[in-house]
Amino acid sequence: RQSLKIGMLPADGIGREVLPGAKAAILALGSSIPKTEFIDLLAGFEYFTKTGTALPDETVETLKNECDCALFGAVSSPSRKVTGYSSPIVALRKKMDLYANIRPVKSVSVNPEGKPGVDLVVIRENTECLYVKQETQTVGEHGKEARATRLITERASRRIGELAFKMALERPHKHLTVIHKSNVLSITDGLFRETVRAVPTLPGVDGKYDDVTVAEQLVDSAVYRLFREPEIYDVMVAPNLYGDILSDAAAALVGSLGLVPSVNAGDSFVMGEPVHGSAPDIAGQNIANPLAAIRSAAMMLRHIGYGDGANRIERAVDSVLREGKVLTPDLGGKSKTSEVVDEVTKRI
Amino acid sequence: RQSLKIGMLPADGIGREVLPGAKAAILALGSSIPKTEFIDLLAGFEYFTKTGTALPDETVETLKNECDCALFGAVSSPSRKVTGYSSPIVALRKKMDLYANIRPVKSVSVNPEGKPGVDLVVIRENTECLYVKQETQTVGEHGKEARATRLITERASRRIGELAFKMALERPHKHLTVIHKSNVLSITDGLFRETVRAVPTLPGVDGKYDDVTVAEQLVDSAVYRLFREPEIYDVMVAPNLYGDILSDAAAALVGSLGLVPSVNAGDSFVMGEPVHGSAPDIAGQNIANPLAAIRSAAMMLRHIGYGDGANRIERAVDSVLREGKVLTPDLGGKSKTSEVVDEVTKRI
Ligand SMILES: CC(C)[C@H](C(=O)O)[C@@H](O)C(=O)O
Ligand SMILES: CC(C)[C@H](C(=O)O)[C@@H](O)C(=O)O
Repeated sequence: RQSLKIGMLPADGIGREVLPGAKAAILALGSSIPKTEFIDLLAGFEYFTKTGTALPDETVETLKNECDCALFGAVSSPSRKVTGYSSPIVALRKKMDLYANIRPVKSVSVNPEGKPGVDLVVIRENTECLYVKQETQTVGEHGKEARATRLITERASRRIGELAFKMALERPHKHLTVIHKSNVLSITDGLFRETVRAVPTLPGVDGKYDDVTVAEQLVDSAVYRLFREPEIYDVMVAPNLYGDILSDAAAALVGSLGLVPSVNAGDSFVMGEPVHGSAPDIAGQNIANPLAAIRSAAMMLRHIGYGDGANRIERAVDSVLREGKVLTPDLGGKSKTSEVVDEVTKRI
Repeated sequence: RQSLKIGMLPADGIGREVLPGAKAAILALGSSIPKTEFIDLLAGFEYFTKTGTALPDETVETLKNECDCALFGAVSSPSRKVTGYSSPIVALRKKMDLYANIRPVKSVSVNPEGKPGVDLVVIRENTECLYVKQETQTVGEHGKEARATRLITERASRRIGELAFKMALERPHKHLTVIHKSNVLSITDGLFRETVRAVPTLPGVDGKYDDVTVAEQLVDSAVYRLFREPEIYDVMVAPNLYGDILSDAAAALVGSLGLVPSVNAGDSFVMGEPVHGSAPDIAGQNIANPLAAIRSAAMMLRHIGYGDGANRIERAVDSVLREGKVLTPDLGGKSKTSEVVDEVTKRI
């Protein structure tokens, strides 16, 4: 690549405060990555309230036709039912076919409330389950009745399963836990479970995953055990909604959602996204933790082939955390968002 | 009542080891409750493997026609897809119209791994959501496609909402948190949220719930905050699946699933049920914690009007816990199930 074009979608709330930090970290890499252009793109709930659309077509077109990758901030949720509104992040994942949401969660020493020994990755299927948003409402004898469809396909389960085995193989423990609730959803979660477990027997795999040990757990008991003995987890693979819940649960273990990055990845595009939300309660105060966004930028860069740059960013973040002097309030510190960003970029 | 008939459904694994403890506790109440008869009833996965049915009609008939209330143990989940199997506990809740699952979770001092300050009740809608088990599978262009229906009705949301407000009003903090994911499921979870929130405006309510403060949270962030600041919760009301996950998460906070009781309650029947599962890994060793089952028996008795008996059982459990000498291994103790039962019954 001669140059790099990164779509920037800050969206709402603290999304707008943390994305500049991610940009600063990428810029701090200087000439070790190609000349980078950042393209600001519109999306979000606030944008919806102004225009009636949460994700303009132009944003999707620009991502598809001009960008090499993207960073998303966070999106606010309406506090009342709002006709016509549909989450732009869910739509983006689907429209860009970003079928995997990869969420690594690792203990840090700075937070006394965090648990030690957490080092896991949640791999969340990102395109189906209840997120297909096929919902209807009718009026029956006893009032309104609403129905949503939960879709699980063999194809989506297989590709997320393949990714999960591949990632497990790359990690020291090579352990994969398949999350489901097939004691209730025997057909949908049954299909997910069986398709994922069958990955090692696919044609062409040829024993490649022989070193991966596989376990499985019901989602309710997975959340329980995640709190009680997080060290049993390495890679967890889950249908969309369970993955959403599990990754927040894992983030709580390490002390702050403000630390947990993710990428939404497809076969031809990747979009970094901090796991936290738009946090309206702290927005506008310059105290949001930028580290999840900065780490998401690193993951995104690694995904498109700039592993060295990603490592430099991640090492800088780790060293700021280890030192524990310049931290935002969620980690017990007193520093501003911008101060943390400066501290990280200085070390890149 | 001249006499009390209690249906006993131990089902699988440690369900069979903890239900005798619940029975012993009830018997220890002596003549302060009516003469009690225990009716053993069949159900469970093991029963299914022998007979091809997990919940015989006779069990349901006996519950409906002869029993005043019931206690359920725990059910095992098949580790592979098993044609024709369907969870008996899910079926029982539906067939007996036990529309609420009430799960109180409270910190105990004996477990150093537990968090202090937890004192909450999860009220889980118990009859619909994905638990309606309407699932289909087809074969499409890219392989198998499975679909499940998630049903949320106004009627079920209203009755669980009414119960939640009623319970919140009875507690010192009078605080209710409505759990949903309406940023994705705007129609189904939107209906749940709006119906529950509208309970105080129902005809006849007449300001009764004015003292109840109401908050709401997305399920993912509710799980996060449950780990980080459990003290913000008092009563939580949730659709079925979220309630399932949240109550396991809350149980982890207090150190052991072996402590958390529940009742499945309807307008005309109640069934106690420990929140833990059948725990095949420890079954048959006489080390399962009987306290969740014993507490479930107390909740059941209170529900049918024997509050004094319930209090006596609960005080006995609390005193065993406070003393911390006779505990099962899940709480760091070395005692057997039967020793804990003896210790509790001695104090009733
Ligand atoms: C904002 C919301 C739609 C989203 C989701 O549920 O996927 C968020 O919780 C996340 O985890 O990225
Ligand atoms: C055994 C299973 C069907 C059940 C449920 O999901 O309701 C269990 O997890 C519970 O919480 O009682």
